[in-house]
Amino acid sequence: MTKINRAFNFSPGPSMLPAPVIKRLQNELLDWNGSGMSVMEISHRSNEFSHVINKSKQLLRELLNIPNNYHILFSHGGASMQFSALPLNLSSPQKIANYIITGQWGLKAEKEARRFSQTKIIANTMNEYRIPTQEELLIDSDASYVHYTPNETILGLEFPYIPDTGNTPLIADVSSNILSKPMEVEKFDVLYACAQKNIGIAGLAVIIVREDLLNQHQAHTPSLLEWQHLSDTNSLSNTMPTFAWYVLLCSLEWLKELGGVSVIEKKNRKNAELLYQCIDQSDFYHSTVSDTAHRSQMNIPFTLKNSELDVLFLEQAKQANLTNLKGHATVGGMRASMYNSMPLEGIMTLIEFMQNFAKKYGK
Amino acid sequence: MTKINRAFNFSPGPSMLPAPVIKRLQNELLDWNGSGMSVMEISHRSNEFSHVINKSKQLLRELLNIPNNYHILFSHGGASMQFSALPLNLSSPQKIANYIITGQWGLKAEKEARRFSQTKIIANTMNEYRIPTQEELLIDSDASYVHYTPNETILGLEFPYIPDTGNTPLIADVSSNILSKPMEVEKFDVLYACAQKNIGIAGLAVIIVREDLLNQHQAHTPSLLEWQHLSDTNSLSNTMPTFAWYVLLCSLEWLKELGGVSVIEKKNRKNAELLYQCIDQSDFYHSTVSDTAHRSQMNIPFTLKNSELDVLFLEQAKQANLTNLKGHATVGGMRASMYNSMPLEGIMTLIEFMQNFAKKYGK
Repeated sequence: MTKINRAFNFSPGPSMLPAPVIKRLQNELLDWNGSGMSVMEISHRSNEFSHVINKSKQLLRELLNIPNNYHILFSHGGASMQFSALPLNLSSPQKIANYIITGQWGLKAEKEARRFSQTKIIANTMNEYRIPTQEELLIDSDASYVHYTPNETILGLEFPYIPDTGNTPLIADVSSNILSKPMEVEKFDVLYACAQKNIGIAGLAVIIVREDLLNQHQAHTPSLLEWQHLSDTNSLSNTMPTFAWYVLLCSLEWLKELGGVSVIEKKNRKNAELLYQCIDQSDFYHSTVSDTAHRSQMNIPFTLKNSELDVLFLEQAKQANLTNLKGHATVGGMRASMYNSMPLEGIMTLIEFMQNFAKKYGK
Repeated sequence: MTKINRAFNFSPGPSMLPAPVIKRLQNELLDWNGSGMSVMEISHRSNEFSHVINKSKQLLRELLNIPNNYHILFSHGGASMQFSALPLNLSSPQKIANYIITGQWGLKAEKEARRFSQTKIIANTMNEYRIPTQEELLIDSDASYVHYTPNETILGLEFPYIPDTGNTPLIADVSSNILSKPMEVEKFDVLYACAQKNIGIAGLAVIIVREDLLNQHQAHTPSLLEWQHLSDTNSLSNTMPTFAWYVLLCSLEWLKELGGVSVIEKKNRKNAELLYQCIDQSDFYHSTVSDTAHRSQMNIPFTLKNSELDVLFLEQAKQANLTNLKGHATVGGMRASMYNSMPLEGIMTLIEFMQNFAKKYGK
């Protein structure tokens, strides 16, 4: 086999996998646990695969400290499928669901919910590149739930607090920051996340739902979107994306071996601090989020003083093995997404590249 | 790396992958096309991945001879998600959908459809282990569609003909026989299939739908289940299970290289003929489908004269590297599922094992 030169991949998702995880996938690909079969070729209902299911649930519960009265469900379709599932499970055309908007993902969730419920945007600060204060959240007293996106990947905005919604269920799309730091699960009613950012590859979603919120679905909910049904069938109603589930398990085992969420949090915070420092200390680069308390630790958008250099920056970055740094079209410039899998070495390489680039073209 | 002893895996699905495909997956896992990234780590919207999308559509169209007025869509969730999507896209609570039942999958599809439409079972011959005749299909003149399952994996029943439904749309769940032989696509209105039997791994479905049937969905259809939306977004509404999509492409490229559907059909027919012959010529084994015209070429259930030997048969088969031969609980005995990936060598090994086992225990 030729020598592999793995890139530091700053993609917002699907994101890079931890090096030990991707190597394990390769090693086990043809013959999983001595079965003579790949894990992709194993029945989702087999004894062999039930280990993947049980272990992944157990590790999620342990790593995130999920209380026992929360069910852990797995679903097809990523977070966007839950944009539909949420109002189907917790609202109705007669009820109103509240949405807090701090970026494109929250906006998408709200738009999809209109197919199944009335909705109301109770705060929208995305155009101001900031997080609303608790006082700005004017929650309807009869809202079926309040939905928000703790970390918005495109604008790079992250909530520094958990909204207090009183008795109204609080729902969070934690796709981009699940397991990046400790979470107080008991302060939420439902958490959901796609797998392809912090916990594996695309095709799978995890839903963490408090027991008493199951079984409130609308009659025309597709079975595979009905949380009660997923719970009743141990998320095995039909053939699940078994390989993605196994990658999730490998990612969780890797995280546990590292020392868990508190250890990865330190690494993630360090990575983010270093990159924001590099941006803020330079007059060549500019952070698009001015309030430092609202800045994301996972996704860091920044612009170049002279946007005509964007193409050159991306070209040279790629040559330096730093890939997928192009910012989202709505923000422009660059974006470095740095999930659990991004090592310190990747950030150091990026910063060195950025400093050299600024020196060369910053006149 | 230690020597790999790959099993002949007779699982009904997820099924074994062709040996060249699984080896290719392993080779390309860490560094796809020299990108320094795995295909799992690539954005579904990247230039690199658009090759996977376009090539897989092109190959499906070519291999299945799909007319230009049929759209090829990709979806999360396997065939079961389409059990919901079908009535959401083509029926309504006011309309009636017709179902032909020849096994458990058709039954599941009908049960799910009741959440979104009225339904009527117009023929049910599963308890007789046979396929109904055309004359037995009493189609409602105002039915929104007629649904059937050309091949039922559990009972091992396969339609020897395509039902004539006149002007009523004909929908087929071809999960277990897509690309196993030529299909007259133009005789159907919608075809759909999961990937994990003949064209890859779990998590992905393919939908082939005639253009004029798009855009009839019910208002409360989740976006990811709406065929028009999938068509409008080139099946990229959200992050798709990219790795499964890539495995699909690898499977299609493998099939094309072999010579296409007509070549694999000969292999599949030969495999099935040999195994049925082995069963029919023995008084130790018994086929559960007596009408030879209704027998499946993909899934062959059979019983042992003495069911007390079942456990021993399975144990010794596993030792002979023949895995997942246990029949479904509702039928009992054994089942050999032999999709496109099963080589002649696998069948020869199975037959030799069966003959030796019968000799030894057939007194």
